[in-house]
Amino acid sequence: MRTIDAIDFFYLSMPVIEDIGDGSQDALLVRVEAGGEVGWGECEASPLPTIASLICPMSHSACKPVSASVLGQPLDSPEDITRIHQLVRQNSADLLQADHALSGIDIALWDLLGKLRNEPIYRLLGYSRAYPKVPYASFLFGDTPTETCEKARRARELGFRAVKFGWGPFGRTSAAEDADQLVAAREGLGPEGILCVDAGTVWGANLEAAYSRLDALRACRVTWLEEPFHTGALQAYRQLARKCPPSLKLAGGEGAHNEFMASHMIDYADVGFIQIDTGRVGGITSARRVVEHALARGVIYVNHTFTSHLALSASLQPYAGIQEHFLCEYPAELKPLAWELTREHLIPDENGEIHLPERPGLGFTPDPETMLRYRVEVEIMVNGEILYHTPHWSRSAL
Amino acid sequence: MRTIDAIDFFYLSMPVIEDIGDGSQDALLVRVEAGGEVGWGECEASPLPTIASLICPMSHSACKPVSASVLGQPLDSPEDITRIHQLVRQNSADLLQADHALSGIDIALWDLLGKLRNEPIYRLLGYSRAYPKVPYASFLFGDTPTETCEKARRARELGFRAVKFGWGPFGRTSAAEDADQLVAAREGLGPEGILCVDAGTVWGANLEAAYSRLDALRACRVTWLEEPFHTGALQAYRQLARKCPPSLKLAGGEGAHNEFMASHMIDYADVGFIQIDTGRVGGITSARRVVEHALARGVIYVNHTFTSHLALSASLQPYAGIQEHFLCEYPAELKPLAWELTREHLIPDENGEIHLPERPGLGFTPDPETMLRYRVEVEIMVNGEILYHTPHWSRSAL
Repeated sequence: MRTIDAIDFFYLSMPVIEDIGDGSQDALLVRVEAGGEVGWGECEASPLPTIASLICPMSHSACKPVSASVLGQPLDSPEDITRIHQLVRQNSADLLQADHALSGIDIALWDLLGKLRNEPIYRLLGYSRAYPKVPYASFLFGDTPTETCEKARRARELGFRAVKFGWGPFGRTSAAEDADQLVAAREGLGPEGILCVDAGTVWGANLEAAYSRLDALRACRVTWLEEPFHTGALQAYRQLARKCPPSLKLAGGEGAHNEFMASHMIDYADVGFIQIDTGRVGGITSARRVVEHALARGVIYVNHTFTSHLALSASLQPYAGIQEHFLCEYPAELKPLAWELTREHLIPDENGEIHLPERPGLGFTPDPETMLRYRVEVEIMVNGEILYHTPHWSRSAL
Repeated sequence: MRTIDAIDFFYLSMPVIEDIGDGSQDALLVRVEAGGEVGWGECEASPLPTIASLICPMSHSACKPVSASVLGQPLDSPEDITRIHQLVRQNSADLLQADHALSGIDIALWDLLGKLRNEPIYRLLGYSRAYPKVPYASFLFGDTPTETCEKARRARELGFRAVKFGWGPFGRTSAAEDADQLVAAREGLGPEGILCVDAGTVWGANLEAAYSRLDALRACRVTWLEEPFHTGALQAYRQLARKCPPSLKLAGGEGAHNEFMASHMIDYADVGFIQIDTGRVGGITSARRVVEHALARGVIYVNHTFTSHLALSASLQPYAGIQEHFLCEYPAELKPLAWELTREHLIPDENGEIHLPERPGLGFTPDPETMLRYRVEVEIMVNGEILYHTPHWSRSAL
């Protein structure tokens, strides 16, 4: 019987973090070790509180450090991962940050198991093959419609068949100005391309503001409207969904930190697309459950991915075998840290599609030199005892 | 204009933390300072990750340390607190632990404002008076029905008119054995007392297990059945609620870390009692919103409180003025740390009722000597820079 001997968290960061909506500026990597084999994962999370959730002192029986439910556990089968996953949820129920820590650990456990069995993760999840996905490129709306049109044209030239615009001025000015933006995006993308819009929760729970954009969204054949409201505003979502033309669906879910919250978006918010970040929702184990629920309810699953290609692989595995759920978010403007984190990348082919590798586990391993280049030194001391120190490593040690 | 000059977090702990369901074994206190006045709050949270969420480096524009949205902000009115609350939610949207940090800070801001205006917090919330509450004493089920009966009798002798039993063997053995426990609890409490039961999520989402206990719950005139399922299993809650006799309501909500999650328990789980921990849900600001929603839906609001009497005051303020919501959770077996944290306490009067003090703010201040006695020294260093060190204080400095 193989047991988990070590969990290490590695905090990496660009030298300067800008105050912009770009989640690829830092990273929290997870390495687990069991019987001489290692697995890697990535949390989509604030690194320091997540490290603290791994090693903090126990507060009571339902508020234990995450490591307490992982270290020393047997790891020989998918059922072992399910059991560890359940243990963390139970023993750290009152530790909010635990879901984000669990996410990276769960990914690393699947990676490790894939390596042990010499299989890609999607096979361990019961899929016989990984279908190609159509990546959509994510852009900020331009400051002007002309700029937005230009960005859409560039995406098409790069071979993207789908584009998502979001944030920037959208939703913050008038419905007429938003309509001009949408027309420009459609013009740049051409009539064939899939166009999605991300409102970035701009309307809070204000239904009228959302209603006033529906005509333009329909006219420009927008596939989904993402996060019109706060994730929790399920009733506003449902009311808006009922007013949407059949061609337009709502999308959301990236904030879900467990499979229940994701299910609520499906069951009560009536989203047509459920967007899950494997690095937040509780890892591959939780994401796979959301896929099942989405299939049962006729909702389309899409990954949410903001960071490295290791995270991208982790986000694609849970729905790799579902052919009809063919779209995927593709981080198109990564910071050097996130791009250089892996030597290999998921590059769209001549059809504009990406394919998961047939390599064991995730099929991606962090590059030790990148890890050294961007490493952040952390030390956490409690009552004179060092509970965490950035692991020391050299190229050969990884 | 008064602005927020400082936020300090103080981590306190019993010398030994036992692996039991007792949340009073450690504490995370918050002190805010604005223009020479101070306010105090308490997070119901794992201390170390919550401290980290206050001071961590920014990851991107929606993943900032909590302090970034608080320090330097004006604080002259309730609207200022609402604005700061909204800023934290927005700027730390992707930092999961932020809601628990925000909770303690929000409480401290209300405390500070109450002191500035020389008013108890409940008045700032728009209530003209604080109605007395009937505290229920919380116990673990005994290992045997005899033991449970004995505990209930003791509670009655102590003057408690309401008792809650939970955890222990309940739900883990047979429905017949659970029935024996319930009969014993009712016998010990006497025919008049209010009896509640906490299943501690023991049935996951297993409806049949819950159904098989309904007859005994009805026969023993149980007022509420708390957390039969995982907080997220809203549909299971609703199905069970539909099978409950009119005298029995479901209760839940302690895990909610924002007002939306609490509303989902009301709107989709059909709970009859919504249980909110001010130290988790986003503070008094969020809790007050849940009260409004509960009133609109005919659901009864009850505090969830596991820790000090400072936290108890913070948990009672949001519904102090609602006469018909008259029950309150009363931590009856506090560890010395939590009991000694405040010099004054909320003690039931001869009618078995407790009354919020008419003192400004929360009406409770931590005792500096207790804080020194139980202090935990923490140091967090990132790239050679100390981002957090336990504040140094002496008796006079507080």
